[in-house]
Amino acid sequence: MSAANPLIVPEDDHFGRNNLPYGVFSTADDADRRRLGVRYGDHVLDLGAAARALGSAHADLLTAPSLNPLLAAGRPVWSEVRAELRRWLDPDADERTRSVLAPLLLPLSHVTLHLPFEVADYVDFYASEHHATNVGRLFRPNGDPLTPNWKHLPIGYHGRAGTVVVSGTPVVRPLGQRKAPDEEVPSFGPSRKLDIEAEVGFVVGTPTRLGEPVPQTAFRDHVFGVCLVNDWSARDVQAWEYVPLGPFLGKSFATSVSAWITPLDALDAARTTPPPRTHALLPYLDDADDGIEPGGFDVRITVSINGEVVSEPPFGAMYWTAAQQLAHMTVNGASLRTGDFYASGTVSGPEKHQRGCLLELTWGGREPLKLPEGERTFLEDGDEVTLTAWAPGPEGERIGLGEVVGRIVG
Amino acid sequence: MSAANPLIVPEDDHFGRNNLPYGVFSTADDADRRRLGVRYGDHVLDLGAAARALGSAHADLLTAPSLNPLLAAGRPVWSEVRAELRRWLDPDADERTRSVLAPLLLPLSHVTLHLPFEVADYVDFYASEHHATNVGRLFRPNGDPLTPNWKHLPIGYHGRAGTVVVSGTPVVRPLGQRKAPDEEVPSFGPSRKLDIEAEVGFVVGTPTRLGEPVPQTAFRDHVFGVCLVNDWSARDVQAWEYVPLGPFLGKSFATSVSAWITPLDALDAARTTPPPRTHALLPYLDDADDGIEPGGFDVRITVSINGEVVSEPPFGAMYWTAAQQLAHMTVNGASLRTGDFYASGTVSGPEKHQRGCLLELTWGGREPLKLPEGERTFLEDGDEVTLTAWAPGPEGERIGLGEVVGRIVG
Repeated sequence: MSAANPLIVPEDDHFGRNNLPYGVFSTADDADRRRLGVRYGDHVLDLGAAARALGSAHADLLTAPSLNPLLAAGRPVWSEVRAELRRWLDPDADERTRSVLAPLLLPLSHVTLHLPFEVADYVDFYASEHHATNVGRLFRPNGDPLTPNWKHLPIGYHGRAGTVVVSGTPVVRPLGQRKAPDEEVPSFGPSRKLDIEAEVGFVVGTPTRLGEPVPQTAFRDHVFGVCLVNDWSARDVQAWEYVPLGPFLGKSFATSVSAWITPLDALDAARTTPPPRTHALLPYLDDADDGIEPGGFDVRITVSINGEVVSEPPFGAMYWTAAQQLAHMTVNGASLRTGDFYASGTVSGPEKHQRGCLLELTWGGREPLKLPEGERTFLEDGDEVTLTAWAPGPEGERIGLGEVVGRIVG
Repeated sequence: MSAANPLIVPEDDHFGRNNLPYGVFSTADDADRRRLGVRYGDHVLDLGAAARALGSAHADLLTAPSLNPLLAAGRPVWSEVRAELRRWLDPDADERTRSVLAPLLLPLSHVTLHLPFEVADYVDFYASEHHATNVGRLFRPNGDPLTPNWKHLPIGYHGRAGTVVVSGTPVVRPLGQRKAPDEEVPSFGPSRKLDIEAEVGFVVGTPTRLGEPVPQTAFRDHVFGVCLVNDWSARDVQAWEYVPLGPFLGKSFATSVSAWITPLDALDAARTTPPPRTHALLPYLDDADDGIEPGGFDVRITVSINGEVVSEPPFGAMYWTAAQQLAHMTVNGASLRTGDFYASGTVSGPEKHQRGCLLELTWGGREPLKLPEGERTFLEDGDEVTLTAWAPGPEGERIGLGEVVGRIVG
């Protein structure tokens, strides 16, 4: 807890006035009441209380117990609320505004953070060429590392929405079937190859009707914001189950997300051009057109195990963009709901220290990581994994994407 | 509309007093108000109005606009509500009960039926050995038809919950990428291989906490009831996209379900023993134990295209049971939510006329079906597909599972 004025955030803070990510919190003295908050420095602004006290036109949305009503309100309202927040937190704001806000900025250490939105459908993509190539080499050593479709469409699958959990939730090592190639029959027990996947997630606000594809140019109209994701994976369970219908129990036990959803607007300065396309794309996926914003985001992720940095995956190196993924996901007429959530797939860069999962970092367990407390191939009970990330902001500062923390419980 | 007394249902009706499936309806004069109903003969009992008029202890659950509050209430309440309904509709019920109910039984032709529950997560299995073998032969002609894991675990994957629609919803032919083996690059357009999959679905009521597996013996505590499912599939889209992460856009455009959820209790007389197990099962899947109810259900499905019967798949022939599927789905600690919904996978029997999809019925399009209006390999625009099903009831009658109807719109 800091005694400093919460209205003043240092210039190098990742959560200054150009970020303003949204979350849901409660306090110990009112534990059952969930409230919307905005992170500002190391404080949380009680958004509903501020909206009522300062007379926001959107006070009804901001006093809800989850982000979903605000998500459903659509891009014009998102912009109005963000502009209002920036006025409130302007260093030159009037004295009354400042005196109203000061007591509504609660130290982060005094609040409990919750899952910020109700997840509708959850889709996980597979958008890093480096990751897909590495995994292909490991899982199918005798074939082409990339499947023939990989460069033609962003491969994805539906995950379990009901087990998306907020950062800090302990991750119980899953039980399951696994069979090594040299074993006759599968055995049952705790996963022996528990892994992470460092990803970036996108939260859908504005819904669509069945049969209404969303072109890349409408990305901003539907996607509210961005968070960090750890898509925990039991590699032994996954390897045995995934042919022919894809990952199921190897992934469905838990997916952790950061407690903060950074608005898309806060990442305007982080827009970047994705890698050159090596294959011609069908029109709905083609992003060479002048009318389409650069689809990449220069988000820099750090993966730590027990406080030791083990990887720094660059999200800007992803082959498929979030706008392409949204266009693909809806091109068959599938509708979007408020709270739909899709993740990028493991973020891996071209370098060894940029790989976003242990499967790649240890090359299938053959090259253990050397950590201060010993070697690691996959996660051991008690290990704590932390993902953090930031992106360049409009004034040279860093825009923080918060953190995703999870400790393995045996 | 029938002028007959709605309190008297013929003995051979599929929706008599031993069935009593639940649904959600509205009427034209009050179109925005969704109400719970129970099907009785060719009428719908307005459940909320009946509960209030007759003083049910569960009137609060029964006046909700969706089944979810009743689903969440758990097995003891489900049994109490069912017993109450059976008392109300007893031919020997008192005169007051009969006079209260008569005006609350609305002809089916006068109501609009809606999706009966809010779908949480949707999982689709692959539980028919006949179907999996046929598909394996068609998709991987040079390999073993069954993958090595098939006899060891019920293979499944998550589908799109947001595009589960109620019977009667038109199905728009999906657009997508498809590439025939002899084509150099994929092309884009309406699916040319639009198919059906006749399935049976299970609706979860009682939720669980993360990390709490559901053994087969607890199946009845968590599963509320059963419905019919048509898992529409674009085979050309699916074939191009599904390696390595499974079906995605080939399935996500629509999944149709019957408007009626038949309570598990109504299917007690339909319980049947699944086929002999050819491989030893791990303990959590082993269903040879005396403590486990027979896991199969003798549900007989009929598939019609434009009124012509094309197949009669027997659900009793499924290799994996719904109780095994629930145990598998949660064995890694994945939690259940009220409204979770899982489908059996295509129901195919050993005979040609028992195959539950066109891919099998026409052997990949090589053996067209001969219908009065012409040959069919896959569905054409304007085709209407109807699934119906029944199961033996406790008194020799038939328990109807309603119908799933969908017309293809180009």
